[in-house]
Amino acid sequence: MRIIIVGAAGDIGQAARKELEQRHEIITVGRSGGDYQVDVGDMIAVKSLYETVGAFDAVVACAGDAKFAALADMDQETFMVGLRQKVMGQVNLVLAGLDVIADSGSFTLTSGVLDRDPIRMGANAATANGALAGFVKSAAIEMTRGLRVNVVSPGMLDVSAPRYGAWFQGHKPVPSHDVGLAYAKCVEGALTGQVVIVE
Amino acid sequence: MRIIIVGAAGDIGQAARKELEQRHEIITVGRSGGDYQVDVGDMIAVKSLYETVGAFDAVVACAGDAKFAALADMDQETFMVGLRQKVMGQVNLVLAGLDVIADSGSFTLTSGVLDRDPIRMGANAATANGALAGFVKSAAIEMTRGLRVNVVSPGMLDVSAPRYGAWFQGHKPVPSHDVGLAYAKCVEGALTGQVVIVE
Repeated sequence: MRIIIVGAAGDIGQAARKELEQRHEIITVGRSGGDYQVDVGDMIAVKSLYETVGAFDAVVACAGDAKFAALADMDQETFMVGLRQKVMGQVNLVLAGLDVIADSGSFTLTSGVLDRDPIRMGANAATANGALAGFVKSAAIEMTRGLRVNVVSPGMLDVSAPRYGAWFQGHKPVPSHDVGLAYAKCVEGALTGQVVIVE
Repeated sequence: MRIIIVGAAGDIGQAARKELEQRHEIITVGRSGGDYQVDVGDMIAVKSLYETVGAFDAVVACAGDAKFAALADMDQETFMVGLRQKVMGQVNLVLAGLDVIADSGSFTLTSGVLDRDPIRMGANAATANGALAGFVKSAAIEMTRGLRVNVVSPGMLDVSAPRYGAWFQGHKPVPSHDVGLAYAKCVEGALTGQVVIVE
């Protein structure tokens, strides 16, 4: 398969790539690095990305920031970051890809643990994660041509613990290899409309 | 209690009001009707609403549109409607209210059935519903002063069936009275961080 990984340079993107590149052609996309660059929050840019890349069988979306801040310090502007980037950005990759992805292709999005196991300062990410779960469950029933859509929801990765562990005290780090397997399950399997939890 | 119901004129808002007005003072808010008017998508307007209303003990948010359209016809602009209005609008009511609501006050938001039982054309609403579930689960753990936040997730109301039933074929209509009870449970009970399903 020819697989586009968006956000390929991040910890999750690398975990997905490591697993998938063993059997597939990988096209890496980032905001500033990778084979191609895109701002997923901009639908026009996403459409242009797909035109440039040409034929593809799967999209793995590991992109899209959320804002980490105390609830009391959040305002509309900071809260919209997660809605525009993590939610709309990943949804853009699906909406813009519906007409151009190969038959039986798949979209695999990325959420995270925070909507089921919240932490302080995580409300924006939790909101985005819940949104993506709702989206894939609903979008899956409207897919045509055998297309599929799922979302991988990993806990904090082992490789991310040195940077983020202080915010995730008590959370058991998830092996990156297991996270990679979840993407393989979504891309190479037949699931659709699922939240694939890795913990 | 002094309870603000935002979106009081809608079917869900009326169900909440009918139950709560038996025991409490109700302030109704709408986009164009009610005691006060507000666009919940505008944080400045929401802050101004709270200043005008004065002291209050609870907010019931039944406001915020989502866009119903076939997935293939959605674009970024239409999809953002649900994120800006149904998600950010209700989150604005919480964020702006944190400092001004009475001690032990509560915020009760409204999602719906579509993120667990999707229908065609419902992806935007499903996304918004999932987002609100993630939000309340996470925001609840950061609340101070005994404040609480929950979301009521009702199926299609019996009174809404004449208008929306065609899109919800096979969905069992939910008695409006039961929906009203869910708001009473959230406002008068001690729950927090919960998705209160009514079906």
